[in-house]
Amino acid sequence: MSIRFILVATRHPGNIGAAARAMKTMGQAELWLVAPAAFPSAEASALASGADDLLARARVVGTLAEAVADCGLVLGTSARLRSEYYWPVLTPREAAPRLLAARASAPAALVFGTERTGLSNADFDLCHGLVHIAAHPDYESLNLAQAVQILAYELYCATGGEARRPRRGAPLAPVAELQRLRTHAGEVLAEIRFADRRAGPHLLRRLARIFGRAELDQHEVNILRGVLTAVQARRRRAGSPP
Amino acid sequence: MSIRFILVATRHPGNIGAAARAMKTMGQAELWLVAPAAFPSAEASALASGADDLLARARVVGTLAEAVADCGLVLGTSARLRSEYYWPVLTPREAAPRLLAARASAPAALVFGTERTGLSNADFDLCHGLVHIAAHPDYESLNLAQAVQILAYELYCATGGEARRPRRGAPLAPVAELQRLRTHAGEVLAEIRFADRRAGPHLLRRLARIFGRAELDQHEVNILRGVLTAVQARRRRAGSPP
Repeated sequence: MSIRFILVATRHPGNIGAAARAMKTMGQAELWLVAPAAFPSAEASALASGADDLLARARVVGTLAEAVADCGLVLGTSARLRSEYYWPVLTPREAAPRLLAARASAPAALVFGTERTGLSNADFDLCHGLVHIAAHPDYESLNLAQAVQILAYELYCATGGEARRPRRGAPLAPVAELQRLRTHAGEVLAEIRFADRRAGPHLLRRLARIFGRAELDQHEVNILRGVLTAVQARRRRAGSPP
Repeated sequence: MSIRFILVATRHPGNIGAAARAMKTMGQAELWLVAPAAFPSAEASALASGADDLLARARVVGTLAEAVADCGLVLGTSARLRSEYYWPVLTPREAAPRLLAARASAPAALVFGTERTGLSNADFDLCHGLVHIAAHPDYESLNLAQAVQILAYELYCATGGEARRPRRGAPLAPVAELQRLRTHAGEVLAEIRFADRRAGPHLLRRLARIFGRAELDQHEVNILRGVLTAVQARRRRAGSPP
């Protein structure tokens, strides 16, 4: 679900492009610009790198009040830790689900201030709350596109996008198969008279734990069983005692 | 706790600088470069923007094998969704605590491939697992510094950095104070003979809910109580019926 990303008085057009790119990687599409220093601009387009559709559709307005007039929830971002706004400060992870929930009934917005100085008190007056991206105290200079990236990433995670991942080619082997593998390994260890004193009395258990941690699929169990069978066959062909 | 960020065969020195900046904002300090196309470079320093200490301390080696030789856990990052590596794919949020846990006993590393093509199969052979940053399927082109930013952010969150936030200037008002505020408001509503039919019979409850959502501190309760008292005093001075 799309959240309105509003950049206020951005001075460097390259930052607008980089912010658009950061938004697009996370499926965000609604960019508003309040009184940008220069827009449209070739530099913004260059840094957007494939996200120029967001720039083409960006709404440019003169004041933040215009940008949020129809919004329900509006959260302002702040790079600094300060409590004088009398608001609880949200983390990006807390802000994302609130924005998405509010978005169900009305547009919801995230507001990013100008480079270096951030949002003004007058800007914050139009917000319902504050989001602070915790950065390391020694070096808190997250730039505009980085801040946009983290918020867009959290929105993407909150919509379940993060859970999208490739399925393994084969399902995990059933536990009964793992037990047969363990039994088979135990037979081979006995046949080859292997006992590693470092592993202690629970050698076979430790082997089984390794198989478990590796989360084997059936094909891989078959491969290992094949290896064990080959060890047995070779020993037998060689005339070793059974 | 510092995780080793290893950039393999980075082609554009500006990306090394931007990655260093992204790391530093989240308190990461250990940058290794495997066969960079150009390093050191003025462009890297320019984009590092205050994180040049990371560049100055960066280790440059010829192969990934050298960079991870002393590491315990090594996770490779992949921009693409693919299952042919026979690994479970971790999200950044899952990877962060695993890396930090592994870091307690040995260096742990995150490996980032070259721009566009990513890590090679030979690189992945040196990894224990795979991290995929879920991006929107329509536009998955997260650049190197963005990927570094998201992983570094998740590491920072996993170490509790995210929980660092400003304390409010004053603690929340105790509930007993909120009850007195509600009672006081009820008295005033009765005195001014106010009844909003839209609010239904539970007007006072709805007011109290608003006070609750606002998470008032004691000073704010005092302000509201003062307003109520002023309303009462004004009415009494005006000779209205009590």
